[in-house]
Amino acid sequence: MSSDQELAGLRQEVADVTKEIIDLISTRNDLAKKIAAAKVKGSFPAEDSRVEDALVRVVVRECEEKGVDKQVGLKVLSTLLAESKRVQGFQSKQALITPMMMSAKAQQVEATGRQLLRLDVGEPNFHPPKAVLDATSEALYGFKTHYTGARGIPELVSAVRRYLDRKHQFVAKDSEVIVNPGGRFGVYMALSTAVKEGESAIVIEPNWPAYKEGLQYIGARAISVHTTLEEGWQPSADAIHDAIRPNTKAIILSYPANPTGAIISPSKFMEIVGVANDHKLTVISDEIYTDYAYKPCQSILGSGAEKFILTSSFSKTWAMTGFRVGYSVSSEETISKMMKIQSLLVTCVPEFIQYGAIKALDSDPDVAKNSEQMKERIEAASHELDGIAALQYVKPDGAMYVFPQAKKADFDCVGFTMKLLEEKGVTISPGTGFGDYPRAFRISLGGSEETIVQGIRKIGELLT
Amino acid sequence: MSSDQELAGLRQEVADVTKEIIDLISTRNDLAKKIAAAKVKGSFPAEDSRVEDALVRVVVRECEEKGVDKQVGLKVLSTLLAESKRVQGFQSKQALITPMMMSAKAQQVEATGRQLLRLDVGEPNFHPPKAVLDATSEALYGFKTHYTGARGIPELVSAVRRYLDRKHQFVAKDSEVIVNPGGRFGVYMALSTAVKEGESAIVIEPNWPAYKEGLQYIGARAISVHTTLEEGWQPSADAIHDAIRPNTKAIILSYPANPTGAIISPSKFMEIVGVANDHKLTVISDEIYTDYAYKPCQSILGSGAEKFILTSSFSKTWAMTGFRVGYSVSSEETISKMMKIQSLLVTCVPEFIQYGAIKALDSDPDVAKNSEQMKERIEAASHELDGIAALQYVKPDGAMYVFPQAKKADFDCVGFTMKLLEEKGVTISPGTGFGDYPRAFRISLGGSEETIVQGIRKIGELLT
Repeated sequence: MSSDQELAGLRQEVADVTKEIIDLISTRNDLAKKIAAAKVKGSFPAEDSRVEDALVRVVVRECEEKGVDKQVGLKVLSTLLAESKRVQGFQSKQALITPMMMSAKAQQVEATGRQLLRLDVGEPNFHPPKAVLDATSEALYGFKTHYTGARGIPELVSAVRRYLDRKHQFVAKDSEVIVNPGGRFGVYMALSTAVKEGESAIVIEPNWPAYKEGLQYIGARAISVHTTLEEGWQPSADAIHDAIRPNTKAIILSYPANPTGAIISPSKFMEIVGVANDHKLTVISDEIYTDYAYKPCQSILGSGAEKFILTSSFSKTWAMTGFRVGYSVSSEETISKMMKIQSLLVTCVPEFIQYGAIKALDSDPDVAKNSEQMKERIEAASHELDGIAALQYVKPDGAMYVFPQAKKADFDCVGFTMKLLEEKGVTISPGTGFGDYPRAFRISLGGSEETIVQGIRKIGELLT
Repeated sequence: MSSDQELAGLRQEVADVTKEIIDLISTRNDLAKKIAAAKVKGSFPAEDSRVEDALVRVVVRECEEKGVDKQVGLKVLSTLLAESKRVQGFQSKQALITPMMMSAKAQQVEATGRQLLRLDVGEPNFHPPKAVLDATSEALYGFKTHYTGARGIPELVSAVRRYLDRKHQFVAKDSEVIVNPGGRFGVYMALSTAVKEGESAIVIEPNWPAYKEGLQYIGARAISVHTTLEEGWQPSADAIHDAIRPNTKAIILSYPANPTGAIISPSKFMEIVGVANDHKLTVISDEIYTDYAYKPCQSILGSGAEKFILTSSFSKTWAMTGFRVGYSVSSEETISKMMKIQSLLVTCVPEFIQYGAIKALDSDPDVAKNSEQMKERIEAASHELDGIAALQYVKPDGAMYVFPQAKKADFDCVGFTMKLLEEKGVTISPGTGFGDYPRAFRISLGGSEETIVQGIRKIGELLT
């Protein structure tokens, strides 16, 4: 047989095998339809995550036996699972009301001329440090209006390194730092480099919706570790251990936490890092609220995590939400992957903004003042909440939120949020936006103390 | 049989079918290895895009016959093709030297103190309009430093609409516009909404590398329509027609073109739009250089394209590269998808920058001045190139580049680029970064006329 005949024959076989795979997807779809019918007949729940877990194990084992790359097997499984759900007619879950949606809603109402007490948006009402405004404007008029390298201007990278050394006694190399266009993009790049389609990551509930949204965008699964108000929003290392699947690649931590304001003890943090190390998981630590912490808060830097990504931002500490600038710290290898993503998607952060950010890192008195004010707001909010018998809450250790929970078992946080907006002109974010918390809601402490106190009083009025 | 037994049985069947699919991937991998061996034996080329085309047809046909969602089949095929290539030991193509890489390289050299004549970077050396600097700074000091909606501030969206009406007599609704953080992100969002993993899009070569990079990032295939200097860099509608595969979803146009400066005639543009309409393709039109056009240049707006996305940016016309701000125009449905992606990945464009951008849209005299200067640079560059016998080129109709080509058949653009940097201190971008153009290179006209003239003279010196 000539070598081109041989090649043609082999290619025909590849086409046949490919066809067979499509046929098996079709068979799988037929089974999915039968399963949907059986579920209806037996009144079984539509979704059962244990079924998915079992399939992940089947695929991982089969890939190992047959020498197929596990990532390939898991990616195909992810496509198959999505197709099964489509065929079974799964309704995509009712769109959650995230803080971002509440903010959009509030802006719409405000545009009609109605004044609101805004307790929804995670944005401090402090002003950015004067030095930041001056440096940004000076850079702008100095024509720092050009492309920069994807990592960020060397002066800002150095400033971040000095800051990490001063704050965390962590000595980073330039190659371990990247300046990014804000916390969300930092989280996206962290997830993209640590978790692939068909893999999974652990998130501690309640949490900022961006983690789950990011995982879903990538085609990866979020495995939630549920924590409760009764346990002080503390996750146990055991629960995290039990959540690990054969395709789990990362665990996302963020303390002080959004929306609860909880901080876990350094020893608990280290215990979780130990579990991550044992299972070769990347710890993604979102430390954006680290300057609003009123008890010791362990950083991932210096925690002994073997694989880690720190993401942070200038938004909260320095009230620079509208600057869209942050940074990530990780291994040279991971940062180098992030630089490729950043080059491809956004080129770089605006040059003059980077010059402004340098000054933020040198403005400790502003940070101290903001932090002190946030502490006062936590006290004021707690004092008000203490007077509302229908609610319970855990006093925040940090961050800029309180996450109270109604004592009433059938409380509907979404209905309450809408009624509160309508009748009292106060905006909050429903608990279901942060996980399985239908009785809870988030109060942001970003506004003035007066706004917070007035807003919480109106919440109390509606509850009595 | 009880309904839970029935369910358990069906789930076992699903697991078995899933296992079979993994086994078939393993079989496919074995075949891929045999194919690799047969290729070596018969000295066949490693990659053959016709084989991939044939498989796409097999999968599409089989999906249609068996009622499997085509997108699912194509996505699985895309995973299988990548795995086959890995198993066959395909070397990923030698990393191309893109303009962005040349710019990074040039910055490294400059950091050592060496002065360079920079003809690499696609960045005009004009200053942003004074009104833009003032408005940006004023907004900054006015504490326009907050989150905005994902679409952009209403004032900028309105300004874009007025601009489109004035420039293209196109009446857009607010819901058809989104402000984005620059051209790259605009292109990424356009590709993401128009093309899915396993699908394909047509690009006209030579082109800005971001299109192919973006498609690759999504897991989609770029089908190149090669154009030549001899044909004046004009693609034929027939060639585009022939490039359409059963999984082709979009065609990317960008005129005036980077790197050639070519503009296609309005009638040719309309002909291509007609082909796209016939095949229900989305036309993605990157119109970033539209103000550097020295003969009539058709916009996608008003072209009759049934599905289209316009992307543009403030970077080139107003010399605002370092602001990272642009905009896209499309159907309400597509823009709404983009808003989801933008909310998830970057939240919004910095607020005070959006205020600056409004003023750019009102600065026609600056645009006219920049455009006039760019025309002079094209004339000056052409005059210099006319004196270099070893090169041929097509005089640009617009944009801010020239793309000359060596007459010598075995010219190596990468080697020449490196030698030029080393020996003459001039930076250009090799032609291979833009497609299959080993004899060509891109000269940017972003620098001063003196830089351009001196740089081209040194190119001439090295060539003789």
